[in-house]
Amino acid sequence: MEQYLGIDVGGTNVKMGIVDATNGRISNFYSHDTASWRTSGHFIERLGDAISLQLAEFPEVSRVGIGVPGLITRDRTTLIEITAIPEIDGMEIVPDLKKRFPDHDFFLENDANAAALGEYYFGEDKLPEDYIFVTLGTGIGGAAIIDKKVFKGGGGNAMEPGHVPSRNEKVLERNIGKKELLDMANQMRANYTGSTQLPSDGTISTTGLVAAATNGDELAKQIFLEMGYMLGEGLVSMVRILDITTILIGGGISASFEFIMPAINERLNYWLTPYYLKTINIKRATLANDAGLLGAASLCFE
Amino acid sequence: MEQYLGIDVGGTNVKMGIVDATNGRISNFYSHDTASWRTSGHFIERLGDAISLQLAEFPEVSRVGIGVPGLITRDRTTLIEITAIPEIDGMEIVPDLKKRFPDHDFFLENDANAAALGEYYFGEDKLPEDYIFVTLGTGIGGAAIIDKKVFKGGGGNAMEPGHVPSRNEKVLERNIGKKELLDMANQMRANYTGSTQLPSDGTISTTGLVAAATNGDELAKQIFLEMGYMLGEGLVSMVRILDITTILIGGGISASFEFIMPAINERLNYWLTPYYLKTINIKRATLANDAGLLGAASLCFE
Repeated sequence: MEQYLGIDVGGTNVKMGIVDATNGRISNFYSHDTASWRTSGHFIERLGDAISLQLAEFPEVSRVGIGVPGLITRDRTTLIEITAIPEIDGMEIVPDLKKRFPDHDFFLENDANAAALGEYYFGEDKLPEDYIFVTLGTGIGGAAIIDKKVFKGGGGNAMEPGHVPSRNEKVLERNIGKKELLDMANQMRANYTGSTQLPSDGTISTTGLVAAATNGDELAKQIFLEMGYMLGEGLVSMVRILDITTILIGGGISASFEFIMPAINERLNYWLTPYYLKTINIKRATLANDAGLLGAASLCFE
Repeated sequence: MEQYLGIDVGGTNVKMGIVDATNGRISNFYSHDTASWRTSGHFIERLGDAISLQLAEFPEVSRVGIGVPGLITRDRTTLIEITAIPEIDGMEIVPDLKKRFPDHDFFLENDANAAALGEYYFGEDKLPEDYIFVTLGTGIGGAAIIDKKVFKGGGGNAMEPGHVPSRNEKVLERNIGKKELLDMANQMRANYTGSTQLPSDGTISTTGLVAAATNGDELAKQIFLEMGYMLGEGLVSMVRILDITTILIGGGISASFEFIMPAINERLNYWLTPYYLKTINIKRATLANDAGLLGAASLCFE
């Protein structure tokens, strides 16, 4: 039974665990707050200490996958810009860890890329070897998997769907990121004269929006259609540039999946030709909370 | 001295020639009108006959590159949809030719992809191993080269920059393809009250536009800025999705290069961050008329 150590480095917590390669079961889960390692000035050493404890308990594990929230070098050895943890920018994390653990192999990847790959190896659905992965949350993240591998593009950091041009001279995530979605919702609520469950005091939440849409609230459904319309337009560019027609949608706001889909479908049908439409398939990602850790572990299949 | 046979299958002519791999010099150039081979009902056989003549004269040539104007299978063996020559749709051109010429290797590629790769091996400028190639002509074509190889994407036919969403619910090439550019030019001419060299009778040509802009004509320059503005927006999506910052612009209307660049630069600076802008480099493709044939030959470097 092959096992990997998966590590999800986040701005709030660093999570790790031993992952069973055959079924994605996580054992020996461990989480540490990121802040104290940051302020210690020895982030990589503390991370190494935590890895050391895991490997001591699981001596048969030889591969370690690490997902980080930011830009990394194309050769996947070095951190370039980790906005949430600027102390580690520029660190040669893979060679550093390899020096301390010479018998182990380390696989570094951007966290959204890792989460995308995790869906292939550990997701509920059987996926094709090529797909686009888009996460809806504070920002709009993403990745592309081509031939079962993370698509790196030219410089190594391909797939920034949140930053393609969208409406009103804004990039996509400045239109439909979480804050922008709620701003739009509150705005549409203020102008709405019909009956709705949504509060009019500017306190609409994403869970409230999904709940209202689920209850059939017309305004909530309209808001998600607006969002889906803009997302669909961004997806069309990706489909045309990458020639990939399976699209997974994940992230917290993918709870809106069924409400954004009609608008996404309208846009895809408007912009795409039969060559694409005959195989187009949009579905919801399945890993949810463990996506980061399982994604990191999935890097070890390489 | 390594030599390759390059074949550029076009809607009007099929061109071929022996290409010196070291310097791109073409010898034994041969061109045949496409129409008569189409109506013969034996296009691939006639193509094979022409190849046979070339190979008889150059027995040392063992590799043949073929560029075709349309969609091909991801494994590069079979034609899917060649709009200009529908008679050959579905033909297994590589296995068919291999059967006739068992000692030779055949390399099939879409023509825009081949032309893009040709710039790497035979262009005037030293290029990096990753770049985007966009052609301005009747349509807006393109390709991406990653690691000195044609980027195929998921399904094999990546990079359709002419078909990304652009202004007014139209794809990019329906806004700035040749016909659309001239429609816009004639429209802007009709509304223009200043002094201009451009004819007001709806007969503006692309060469006339370039000539006027070169002479400092303000309206001609404005028209190209409009075009550059829309092109620049499309380029931003490609840069964000592919993480590639060298962009080559080719095709007949790239004669407008210096006039569209100010608007392209304005858009790139507006949408992109320093991570991209520090290496962004837009230049004109250099192969011009021989791009198709040299591009086809460059496939043989594989």
